[in-house]
Amino acid sequence: MSVTEISDAPPLEVERWFNTDDPPTLERLRGKVVVLHAFQMLCPGCVAHALPQAKRLHEIAQHLDDLVVLGLHSVFEHHAAMTPVALEAFLHEYRIAFPVAVDRPSSEGSIPHTMAAYGLRGTPSTIIIDRAGRIARHSFGAEDDIVLGLTLGSLLRG
Amino acid sequence: MSVTEISDAPPLEVERWFNTDDPPTLERLRGKVVVLHAFQMLCPGCVAHALPQAKRLHEIAQHLDDLVVLGLHSVFEHHAAMTPVALEAFLHEYRIAFPVAVDRPSSEGSIPHTMAAYGLRGTPSTIIIDRAGRIARHSFGAEDDIVLGLTLGSLLRG
Amino acid sequence: MSVTEISDAPPLEVERWFNTDDPPTLERLRGKVVVLHAFQMLCPGCVAHALPQAKRLHEIAQHLDDLVVLGLHSVFEHHAAMTPVALEAFLHEYRIAFPVAVDRPSSEGSIPHTMAAYGLRGTPSTIIIDRAGRIARHSFGAEDDIVLGLTLGSLLRG
Amino acid sequence: MSVTEISDAPPLEVERWFNTDDPPTLERLRGKVVVLHAFQMLCPGCVAHALPQAKRLHEIAQHLDDLVVLGLHSVFEHHAAMTPVALEAFLHEYRIAFPVAVDRPSSEGSIPHTMAAYGLRGTPSTIIIDRAGRIARHSFGAEDDIVLGLTLGSLLRG
Repeated sequence: MSVTEISDAPPLEVERWFNTDDPPTLERLRGKVVVLHAFQMLCPGCVAHALPQAKRLHEIAQHLDDLVVLGLHSVFEHHAAMTPVALEAFLHEYRIAFPVAVDRPSSEGSIPHTMAAYGLRGTPSTIIIDRAGRIARHSFGAEDDIVLGLTLGSLLRG
Repeated sequence: MSVTEISDAPPLEVERWFNTDDPPTLERLRGKVVVLHAFQMLCPGCVAHALPQAKRLHEIAQHLDDLVVLGLHSVFEHHAAMTPVALEAFLHEYRIAFPVAVDRPSSEGSIPHTMAAYGLRGTPSTIIIDRAGRIARHSFGAEDDIVLGLTLGSLLRG
Repeated sequence: MSVTEISDAPPLEVERWFNTDDPPTLERLRGKVVVLHAFQMLCPGCVAHALPQAKRLHEIAQHLDDLVVLGLHSVFEHHAAMTPVALEAFLHEYRIAFPVAVDRPSSEGSIPHTMAAYGLRGTPSTIIIDRAGRIARHSFGAEDDIVLGLTLGSLLRG
Repeated sequence: MSVTEISDAPPLEVERWFNTDDPPTLERLRGKVVVLHAFQMLCPGCVAHALPQAKRLHEIAQHLDDLVVLGLHSVFEHHAAMTPVALEAFLHEYRIAFPVAVDRPSSEGSIPHTMAAYGLRGTPSTIIIDRAGRIARHSFGAEDDIVLGLTLGSLLRG
């Protein structure tokens, strides 16, 4: 499932970051292509497919200019299980090295702030943000590796 | 890695059970072949290989007499992350339907009681208990499906 | 799909053997458990699943008494493509080391003799023959590794 | 293993085509991006990885302008096994729908003409030809899906 819209990417609303000493903002990443992987640590499709894809993409990005991979832990269920301390253990065990933001919980209801701002339908979701800070692609569920590469290759060249 | 010993299986020391209203004991399971899958919910090898194997074996066991699959959540690291409430969410998300015991934590140190009694080296570990209540096979790490089947087929026939 | 019948395994009708200097017969294998993997070298399900399973089982059998793995190349379509010379190249490239029989072609029609005698419905088919030379299990399509192991473990113990 | 050269793609030297009534030439494909998958039907790495990737890419290409997937059957070993009649059966069984060229055999030696002209080191090899008819990427062995997509996305945009 993918939807392509041309709209500005809302700012990330983040409770805390892991794997970075210098928390990124989309504003400061303007000029780069950003892949935002929204996941939950207890979502089987995220663990089996989306996070391995994000890890692989992060490795590839080390050899490219201007491609940035970010994780977004958007917890909308099982809040007591998927706490930041649990996420920290998860990131360690799964050897996830790219920066991961904890989506800021809402005071009421279950949908955290960034998830709501982007209109995410669930996890995993992949959001691709172009050099101008616009949402170039937004997909829910398993994203095909080749399609992901095609989209990014085009945006990096553009 | 597998070690075959002929020794009586120690009793399970359990803090609480999930997925059963009638907590089993090895004593009451005497006469059946028991496969005990020790895992941690944040252990990648458990999630990718051992638990899918245990789920598949549990499905097969529904069509067999005298084969019982039990899970054992033996937390020896990241204790704050792998709490019973987190495990409950994990079992729900991963559709694990066989009974799972929470290994009783020790008051000091990190190795829970059943893990210590069985001398488990880590997770995943697979312990096969024969009809007489003896440990017939004890392996650490990924267990081959065919080898697992061969062992169980022999014990069930025996 | 599996069918269990209790009937004597018909003799293998073989045009030629690969991977053996001492062509086996079911008669001489009496007393052992025999797994007969019927395949075609251009059958995708055979190449992706059944032959890797047979290779793995053959490796395991080296450490067991009385378990024998045999291949049976039962060509019932694309006869001009799946000749013995093509099979020889295939066995080399896919590193298949267990003995493989070329099922004897029939003079008319497309079903070779052993395939007809066993009533195989297609490839891959897995036939398990017990120590007494009877067909203990006959399955068509992908065979589950655990179920295969369970069946063989029971027969080897029996 | 990949090598990037900027050189004109030599013309395809083809004995015959499958899956097309209108045999393509690189000259006529000028203006499009061409992915040329060199394979052998009995090469395990081709069957397990490269051809599924090419099939997937061909499906994706139906939704894109200007991306063309071609197969090249470059037989350099087991010539008696991998004949055009065997290839035809293979393409049918594996449901390969994109055009496949049979690389023209050389009169002496084992390397067919197109394989020699491109300096292919073996199979699978993936050659990417840009809109101007130049070799943009040439890789031997398993090609990563994301990397393939990135390269193509960039060339299609360029």
